[in-house]
Parts: sequence; C-alpha cells; structure tokens
Amino acid sequence: MLRTHTAGSLRAEHIGSTVTLTGWVDRRRDHGGVAFIDLRDASGIAQVVIRDEEVAHPLRSEFVLQVTGEVSRRPEGNANPNLATGEIEVIATQVVTLNESAPLPFQVSTAVAETEQIGEEARLKHRYLDMRRPSQAHALKLRAKISRAARRVLEAHDFTEVETPTLTRSTPEGARDFLVPARLAPGSWYALPQSPQLFKQLLMVGGLERYYQIARCYRDEDFRADRQPEFTQLDVEMSFVEQDDVIELTEELLAEIWQLIDVAVPRPIERITYDDAMRLYGTDKPDLRFGNPITELTSYFKATPFRVFQAEYVGAVVMKAGASQPRRQFDAWQEWAKQRGAKGLAYVTFGEEGELGGPVAKNLSDGEREHLAKATGAEPGDCVFFAAGKTSEARALLGGARLEIARKTGELDESKWSFVWVVDAPLFKPTGEDDDVDLGHSAWTAVHHAFTSPKPEWLDRFEQDPGKALAYAYDIVCNGNEIGGGSIRIHRRDVQERVFGVMGIAPEEAQEKFGFLLEAFKFGAPPHGGIAFGWDRIAGLLAGAPSIRDVIAFPKSGGGYDPLTDAPAPITPEQRKEAGVDATPEAREGKAAKEPVAAAK
Amino acid sequence: MLRTHTAGSLRAEHIGSTVTLTGWVDRRRDHGGVAFIDLRDASGIAQVVIRDEEVAHPLRSEFVLQVTGEVSRRPEGNANPNLATGEIEVIATQVVTLNESAPLPFQVSTAVAETEQIGEEARLKHRYLDMRRPSQAHALKLRAKISRAARRVLEAHDFTEVETPTLTRSTPEGARDFLVPARLAPGSWYALPQSPQLFKQLLMVGGLERYYQIARCYRDEDFRADRQPEFTQLDVEMSFVEQDDVIELTEELLAEIWQLIDVAVPRPIERITYDDAMRLYGTDKPDLRFGNPITELTSYFKATPFRVFQAEYVGAVVMKAGASQPRRQFDAWQEWAKQRGAKGLAYVTFGEEGELGGPVAKNLSDGEREHLAKATGAEPGDCVFFAAGKTSEARALLGGARLEIARKTGELDESKWSFVWVVDAPLFKPTGEDDDVDLGHSAWTAVHHAFTSPKPEWLDRFEQDPGKALAYAYDIVCNGNEIGGGSIRIHRRDVQERVFGVMGIAPEEAQEKFGFLLEAFKFGAPPHGGIAFGWDRIAGLLAGAPSIRDVIAFPKSGGGYDPLTDAPAPITPEQRKEAGVDATPEAREGKAAKEPVAAAK
Repeated sequence: MLRTHTAGSLRAEHIGSTVTLTGWVDRRRDHGGVAFIDLRDASGIAQVVIRDEEVAHPLRSEFVLQVTGEVSRRPEGNANPNLATGEIEVIATQVVTLNESAPLPFQVSTAVAETEQIGEEARLKHRYLDMRRPSQAHALKLRAKISRAARRVLEAHDFTEVETPTLTRSTPEGARDFLVPARLAPGSWYALPQSPQLFKQLLMVGGLERYYQIARCYRDEDFRADRQPEFTQLDVEMSFVEQDDVIELTEELLAEIWQLIDVAVPRPIERITYDDAMRLYGTDKPDLRFGNPITELTSYFKATPFRVFQAEYVGAVVMKAGASQPRRQFDAWQEWAKQRGAKGLAYVTFGEEGELGGPVAKNLSDGEREHLAKATGAEPGDCVFFAAGKTSEARALLGGARLEIARKTGELDESKWSFVWVVDAPLFKPTGEDDDVDLGHSAWTAVHHAFTSPKPEWLDRFEQDPGKALAYAYDIVCNGNEIGGGSIRIHRRDVQERVFGVMGIAPEEAQEKFGFLLEAFKFGAPPHGGIAFGWDRIAGLLAGAPSIRDVIAFPKSGGGYDPLTDAPAPITPEQRKEAGVDATPEAREGKAAKEPVAAAK
Repeated sequence: MLRTHTAGSLRAEHIGSTVTLTGWVDRRRDHGGVAFIDLRDASGIAQVVIRDEEVAHPLRSEFVLQVTGEVSRRPEGNANPNLATGEIEVIATQVVTLNESAPLPFQVSTAVAETEQIGEEARLKHRYLDMRRPSQAHALKLRAKISRAARRVLEAHDFTEVETPTLTRSTPEGARDFLVPARLAPGSWYALPQSPQLFKQLLMVGGLERYYQIARCYRDEDFRADRQPEFTQLDVEMSFVEQDDVIELTEELLAEIWQLIDVAVPRPIERITYDDAMRLYGTDKPDLRFGNPITELTSYFKATPFRVFQAEYVGAVVMKAGASQPRRQFDAWQEWAKQRGAKGLAYVTFGEEGELGGPVAKNLSDGEREHLAKATGAEPGDCVFFAAGKTSEARALLGGARLEIARKTGELDESKWSFVWVVDAPLFKPTGEDDDVDLGHSAWTAVHHAFTSPKPEWLDRFEQDPGKALAYAYDIVCNGNEIGGGSIRIHRRDVQERVFGVMGIAPEEAQEKFGFLLEAFKFGAPPHGGIAFGWDRIAGLLAGAPSIRDVIAFPKSGGGYDPLTDAPAPITPEQRKEAGVDATPEAREGKAAKEPVAAAK
C-alpha cells in the first residue's frame, strides 16, 4: 500500500507516530506561510500541515497526494469536534504529488456538501467526480449494504444464489425486449431478459427449492421519469410454499434492510385487498403514511339533478381547512386535474358555519347539500373535491388528489415509513389499458404476468369470468411505491395452457414462445412461488434519493443515453456485417422440438 | 409451507412424530403389497412406506408428492447406514399427488447417480431434470458457496460491491463486442461489456478505493471448447496499491475458496516470471502439479550436423521410462504433434545400457550423442522428445508434450493442487499472434489490455523497446489454468496516451474510443490496480467438473446455442423495425464533447 493509515482513522491515540496517508486535496487554507490541507480519502478527512511554502504552493483542489508526517495534537482551541479526526493534524515531512487535477467542472469538496446545486447532466457526464461528493459516495455504499443485508437473510434460510442467462430467448412480460444479433447464427437474435422469471421457475422444476439472485434486467420502454433501460431486481423463488411463506420471508428481508437506517419495519405488515386499495385510495400502491381515504358517493348522488354527477361513479376526497384557499389555488387544482387528463376537479367548500360554497354547490339538490358534510366527513372550513365518470379514471384522479392534498397540507410526514401488502389483485385485465406491450391477442391480458396462478378458489373456473378471477399475487408497497411483487405460480401444464387460452395465445404460439416451460411442466413441476424486488427503488428510498439515478453508479439519462461514455453510438459497417444483422436466418433443425432428446445441433 | 419437515432432516429423534413431507419419487420398490418410496427433496431422501396399494399404484418416478405420516424406526435389519435418514421411515397416512410426471428422457434418480452416462445435449435441453441429479445440484450449490466465500473476504476488507452498466459503449479488450440496437436512438447501438474494466477504473477515479462485483461479461468469440458467450468474473479494483497488495488479497480469497473443499492453499503462493514459465514449461500457465521442465539445447546443438536442429531454438523434454513404448505409440506422438501444427516430434530413446535409439540418433554427431543423457537429464530407459524451430512454437510444443507425458506416465496426480503467480509478462506483443481482435494499428498490441501500466522501471522508456518492456501485471494459475489476471493500471493521462501511441491508436481514435477515460484521468486519478477471476473456471475446478458448463445453471452449447430455450431465434419484421436496426443514426450534438459540462442532448 502507498499508505500506512487511512486519513479518517487517525485519532488522539496516534499522536506521536509517523504515518503515510494518501488522498485528495479536499480543501486548502493558508495562514501565515503555513498551508492547511484537508486530505480526503474514502474513510474521511485528516488535516495536513505543510510548513514549506514551496511544497505547498503548487497543490490544488483534487490533486492526489501521498503525505508522510507526524500525527500531532492540534493547537489549543483548534480542535474540530465535528470531525472524527478533529483532535489531530499531520505535520508533513514529505509530500509526493501522485497525480494532478485540472480545474474541476464542479466542486466536490466535502466543505461544500449539501450547499452546491449541480445540474444532473454535468453530474452524470463526470460521474467519477460526482461520486467523490459525500452524499453520492454514501448512496453507493448504502446500496452495497442493502444487498449484503438481503444475502444475509436469504443465506440464513438456505437459499442458493444462481446466475441465470442474459443472452436468451424473449420472455414476453409486458415490455419490449432488447435484442442482440447472434454472429454465429446470422440473422438470429438473442433477447436480454426482462426478468429471470422463466429461468427461476425452471430452477424450481429442477428441484433447487430456494433460489435468489440480484439480477440485471432489461426493458426497452419509452422514456418515463425514473425508469432505466437496465435495472436490478432481487429475485426470489421457493418451492412448496404458499402466499404466507413468501410474505413472511419478505417481511424479514425488509426488516433487515430498513434496520440499516434504524427504521423498524412493523411485522406483520398490514394487508389490503386490491379492491379496497382502489376503492379507498384510487391506486394499487397506496401511500398509507396518512389517512384521508376516498369516499364513494355514487349511491348518494344516484338521483342527482347535477348532470356531471350522473355518472357510473362519483367519489370525493376531503381537504382539511381547504375552504380558505384563495381562488387562484382552486384554479391551480383545475390545471392539475387537466394535466392528468380530467376535465377539471369539482369542489365544494364548507364555511365556518357549515355553509356550502364553490360553483358546484348550487347544482345540487337541497337534500344532497344538507347531508353532504356527513356523507363526506367534511367539517366546517374544509373543502371537498369530487370526481365523477368512469370508475377507474375517477378513482385515479381522487387518489392523485389525496396525495397532492397531503403534500399541501403537511399531512404527509416525509420522515414516516408505511408498508402495506396489496393482495387479491385480478388475474386478468382488459388489453390496451396502458402503454406496455400486451401479451396475447384477446380482450384479456395478465395483470402480473402470464405465469401467475389463479387463487385456489378460481383455479377451476377462471375462464368463466376472467374479469373477476383473482390472482394468487401480492405486491409490497412502501410510501406509495411498489417495491416488490410476486405470486404463487402456475405449476401445472393444463392450467398454464388455459391461462394462455384466456389471453388468446393459441397452442402453436404458446409452443413457439414458451414451449420449453410447458415441456418442463410435464416432468413433475413442484408448486412454487416467489417475489422480485425493485432494487434501485429500494436503495433510492433508503438513501432518501430524489431519483433512482442517485443509487446507480453509472445511470442513463433520458432516452437511454449515457452522458459519460456517449453510448449508444453508431457501429462500423464491418461490425454490422460481422454481427450478421442483415442475414436471413437458416431454419434450425429440431427447432421447438417435441421429442425430449432431439439432437439440437 | 406445504410440509412440516424436509425429507433429509429426519432422524431417530423424530420417531413418533407426525410429519408432512414434500418431494419427488426418487425410486419405488414394492414388497408384498407394500410400496417403499424414496421421497427426495433438496435436503435429501426419506423412505416412505405406503401400505394402501390403491394409493401407491399410480405413483411413478418424479411424481411430486405431499406425504403425511408417522416417523417410525425401520424394522430390525432394514436400517441403511449410508443414508442420513437411514434409521427411520415414514408410514404414510395421507398421500397427495401435487403433480405428475411423464416418463423421463433420462433417469435422474439418486440411485443411478454416478452410473448413468447422459449425452450433454439431452442434459442441456432438459437442464431442469439434469439439475435434479445430485452431482449437478451439488455443482450449482458449490458455486453459490464460492461467491459467498469471496464476498466474506472482500467485505471484511471493506470492499464495496458496485453494479456497473451492461448497456454501454464498446471497450475494446481483445474480442468482439455483442451489440444491442437502441430503439430510442435509431441506428445507434449499445455494446455489452467484455468486462467492467473501464467502469471499475472510473470508480477508482471516483474515490471509491475498493470495489468488487461478480460481473456478467460478454465476448463474441468463435467457438472454442469450454468458452461461453456470456461468462462471470469476480472483478476487483483497489486504489493506492502495489502489486503485492493485490497478490496478498488474492491469496486470502483463494484460501477461503479452496477451504470449501478442504484444500489448504499454500501462502505465499510461489511466483515465476513469464520468461521462466515460457522457458521451463513452454506456456504462460504452467501446470506445476509435477516437475519435468523443458531443457533448452540450442547452444548444445549450435554446431550440429542435423539439419532439423540447426534452428533458432532446440529444446527437449524427458519421458521417464519412455524408451520401451511400442512403435505405434511413437507414431501416435507424431500424430499428436501434427495436430498441433508441428511437422512431428523428434525423439531419442536411451536403452538399459544408455545406448541411443530412434531415428534421430544417427543424425547427431558423436559428441552430441555422448553427452545427450547428461544434457537432458535422461536416464537409461527414458525417452527424450525434441522440438526445434521458432522459439515460441517449439516451446509451446514441448510444453504440450510435457503435459501429455505426465498424463501418460501417471506423473500428473489429479488430486493435487498447484498454484503459481506468473509475473513480469511483456507489456506488448506483436499483432496477429492469435485469433483475438487486436486493438490498434501498429506492429504492437497489448498482452493484457491497453490499460495495464508498464513496470515502474519501464515507465519512462517503454517506447524505446516495446518488445522488451514489462507489464506491471500478474496472472494466477491453478493446475495449468489461468484462473485470474490483473495489473496495476495506468492512472496518468500522458502514460495512457503514450501506450496508445505504441499500439498505433491515434489521438483522434483514442478520443473517440476512450475519451471519457482520458478525460477522467485529468481530474486527480489515484494509482490503482486490480484483478479479475474467471468465476466459471474456478467453480469448475472446485467441483471437479469436466466442463465449465457443469457449473453454469443454463449454459450455451456450441456456437452459442441454447438447447433449452432454442435461442437465438429469428425476430419479426415489427421487432426489427422497432429496434431501429436499419435506421441511419443522427449525429448527436456534443458527441465526444471536450467541454466538461456540455449539455448532452
């Protein structure tokens, strides 16, 4: 080692010893011909005193130094109680410049931490400087601790870590695949996995019983805020389990992870049904750091004279003390609603004497006005926002309003943590409801994915009412973020084929896409289930990071662009030719072979 | 859980308790109306006794059962001391078939382990059955233990695990990149990393100081035996270190890993220079489980009348007691040499009285014959093989012969372990020496990679004699396999540019390909170095596996083909269109920007 000690480890007990440190010039101050250098390494900072002006003169911010000197007690009154090494300083006898630094595009000194605001493009382009900043270094180290904590729990429960392939066949799971041309089979392509889903199921068929992997996954999605084309999930699968077993394991994992920031996860974690989540919070990932659920008023307004409320669904959410908002605030709410695709956000205010105000009130019947406070739970001084229309859309709007209200009123305590399981989600949803790539060709597609088992009571009859059939699935939600989701899987070939059937995947297509899974299910597949956790999201939450980009060492910015390496980039004609991108694939003998031991070439 | 106990955990202490087990029918025997089922789960096997013929009748191999029953002592004389659960059996009161199994393409029962020979294509196609076999399950679990052991060591030394990107820019490291079209930047491509080399160096520039990752890497190489297009390496990098620091850490890692199979790695591990390895063993990865080095005879034969030995290099290797090989064996040696591209393998035999035999002897001078035994170390009854010609080729042939001799004579003890560091390799090699993709356009390319530092004594003058300059690099070799390799890296921009210069990489090309690294080196890059370990190879060695495919859960077979999922596969015209494969890339503004904070889009 080029050093004998790390800078941050020096204490009063080292006084009198000669040490050699290495690190960066974090800050430099000059006092009467003496230079004081804050020398920073990964462990912390030590103050170095250089009395030789000629030596000190050329040293600039972020120069890399090797300093030898004697550890001394700082002069009376100069100790820094805020610094672990604040009692000592190193009187330099030799200073070697290991490397120089050009002037920086932005300051990284610990001294300006928390105060500097640096544009994200600059941070990403010079990520290697960005990560010298304490907060960014902390985020990366915390992420490593999270992985370590998870491994600790999983290994204690006898899980085996298995690496699954990433040059593989497309496993449609709701998004586009990234593709990789196969030079040795010109015109054929690998797909990068959206998740190890099928491979982990095959491991269960293989009798491994308990698998985990911190797995890189890939989804070629259009840019959405805070999505990355490659991301990480903690992927877990178990055999011979029921829902409660996966839930119990998860709770132990979460407890161990949040323990890292001294937060005790309450166990067992509360559960809510998907229906209740949608009904009360307008979302399948409710933020339960605060209450204020949605009130459904459909039947309350069933005979309303107000045309707008003559709808499939009417609901409301209360804003405490919201009646006194100035007019422009109410206008801003309309704007807010329009940005979410709604026509506006109807509201009624309750005056100090309970009198109704706002443009909607006069459209209601006397009876409706009279009991409105009681029906919505509003009190004098409150405001009530309404949404009416298609149930799912109106609920989503009210769910969004509930969150926005909590932010505005301070009801949302950012220091709190809420965890909730959302269970009993539907197995299928109508196709075309969001912009993901639906699998199948019928009116129905999978809510979770095509390998999710129906709940036991639906196993024999999910085809009869696909919209009502429940999935044997569970999502774990933290502060309104889905941080993990899983299910008990289908392990019987007949059930899998029936689910494909509902999704409009014909037997030939099923064979083409999932033939190897269906084949595997023929040979004694055990009941199994599992879960996958959004590792970037969990690390982001723990680090208190505004974006998951803060907990990824080298993230992409918008559109999948890497400002650091300038990827993606054009390729040369030679690369293109070699990759076989433009070749016509030869038919492979034995393709989708039905014979168990067919030679595969 | 669908069970109360695992099958393999039952012992005499459980006698009398009622248990529920789950698992596979490993084997079934019938005795007088009673069926004995070996029920197998991941933990082991328990014997289940089913007295109801109707229940037992339909059960076949690999059916998945849930069995409830009472644990009983096996009847007198029926205990099986070879089985952990051999004292007990479970008298079934309820048997539920959780899943059935079709007849298997090959037997997986523990009972036929070690005896069944199954073709590899069948094993890979039905990998989920293959891994029910004890040896394959063991290999996967051992691999997980190896990763765990490595993490234990690295975390104790304060290393931080960091995930580096895999959708990135090409980092030329001696092989072809796999490419990924970027849909959101049509006509542009990502590359999958050949290793995290540049990113781990950037982490060092970022001040992380100690990094590790068990990283997936990708090389698009022509098929060679036992290569996989995707493979795993344990990747390690440290700042402020010298060669000995990385070597010391490595030895601790290897000791912890080999401890898993109760092998003590000798520390410190022996070191040999690259020159000595080539001179004595004809390879840069010598197998030192046995001795018998090559003897150089160039000067011995400097005046030889034998035309074949009038060569740049003449060397020999002894085969103990080899004189008595029958003629057809010597013919086979000629064949063996020809397959390696040589014209043949000259030899001389030494009779019981020391008399010379074989076709070469008569071509030598009297003096050469007289002292040959002494010069080669041969004794009566031995045989000496010769190679003459270009030094590198002749040495390679003798190195191969040395190995082959050891195998034939039994000198090679397969149960032994030998570890050796190969140090002081050359920095550069002439281009075109193997079939990898050379980086650069000059007569020289890098032996390790372009980021390897010259040894300190060559730092100021490697351009003056590129063929002699030594690299600050170290490879760790186990039983003739390179299991890891690393180096102290270049951390100064000027040195990196000079190395690129020797390799014929012009400044513009360097900027285009490695601009971000050169840019990073401007801002206080610390001295750093590291190592990467071939994780598949190490796991294969520990598992005693004939192929690394045995320690990869879902490996590819020849040509990068996956017999299980039938990947790679053709894509649809829609996928091709969406991927933007055929688009002309737009020039991106700010590309290879020299301005530190240039906007990136």
